[in-house]
Amino acid sequence: MADYIEPLQKLAEQFGKLSGIGRKTAMRLAFSVLDMSEEEAAEFASSVIEAKEKIHLCPICQNLTDKEKCDICSDETRDRSVICVVEDAKAVIALENVREYNGLYHVLGGVISPMNGVTPEKLRIKELLTRLEDSEIKEVIIATNPTVEGEATSMYLSRLLKPAGIAVTRLAYGIPVGGDLEYADAVTLYRALEGRRDV
Amino acid sequence: MADYIEPLQKLAEQFGKLSGIGRKTAMRLAFSVLDMSEEEAAEFASSVIEAKEKIHLCPICQNLTDKEKCDICSDETRDRSVICVVEDAKAVIALENVREYNGLYHVLGGVISPMNGVTPEKLRIKELLTRLEDSEIKEVIIATNPTVEGEATSMYLSRLLKPAGIAVTRLAYGIPVGGDLEYADAVTLYRALEGRRDV
Repeated sequence: MADYIEPLQKLAEQFGKLSGIGRKTAMRLAFSVLDMSEEEAAEFASSVIEAKEKIHLCPICQNLTDKEKCDICSDETRDRSVICVVEDAKAVIALENVREYNGLYHVLGGVISPMNGVTPEKLRIKELLTRLEDSEIKEVIIATNPTVEGEATSMYLSRLLKPAGIAVTRLAYGIPVGGDLEYADAVTLYRALEGRRDV
Repeated sequence: MADYIEPLQKLAEQFGKLSGIGRKTAMRLAFSVLDMSEEEAAEFASSVIEAKEKIHLCPICQNLTDKEKCDICSDETRDRSVICVVEDAKAVIALENVREYNGLYHVLGGVISPMNGVTPEKLRIKELLTRLEDSEIKEVIIATNPTVEGEATSMYLSRLLKPAGIAVTRLAYGIPVGGDLEYADAVTLYRALEGRRDV
């Protein structure tokens, strides 16, 4: 990398800091900035700044928003008796794309992972408990990822919330739609058998 | 994409304009900007602007540079009797990484491609001819990519330059080092046979 001109090198290093971008891709992206017009590059730079400046966490559900409260929390037509607990804002987007769920969300900002120093206190569980004091909520759907940490977080929350008389549910495990039994792992197949339903 | 918050959506669209970045990757990159600190985001934005502002073409070889003349053109130790003609600045970087070639470069800024409206006049061939009037140059190595257009450009240049008494050479074709004959295509194998050398 020694022979690159310095501003190009610096730009590539900046791209390299983004998630999942390696050295070669970073350089390709830096080159494609050079192919932009001066105005396009300025627009690109300002949208980086703008996104950082305008986007913050919704004080209620901890999801990302550029407004005072997020669109979901301020939407009066949504069902205020259900909260879906997710790890991050990306999960909210994935669930919203289904266009089936009409309740509220709560973004934990991670999962319990003692190995990485993430204890329950570091997640936004306190904020969730505060919301639940508001007696409107009847059900909490736990939609953390199907990983060991996601599962541990789910167990932790369920033990915390059930005594308060709130229904706590978990997303169903099973074979993914369009998948092939041949390639499904044993744990998934076991969960699919266990969770079988009448047809 | 409808439910994303606007500054995030806009940032993802900006990332999506970069070469080889699809919708999903663009959104992942936008999210990783949100994970940056305010300072890191500012540094990222300023390096985009800086790269665009500072980098321009070297007036001699048309390579990218942030100085008046590029480092290669201003390096007095380089062999000024050879010019290697390449398509773009990325090819210069690839060749420089070999640390074997010590001559000069000339960046065409593309290849002849009538289908895409790129005629010889749109490439920096005029600038190359001006450089060749300077009688120091004895050899022109054509290092355009081994594509139909690269080949056509090579033929065009060779017909243009040879009558002026300049040696015109082309990079060797053959099987790539570490490759496998079984997977080499027929044209490459044919070129490898044709270009065989004594051992």
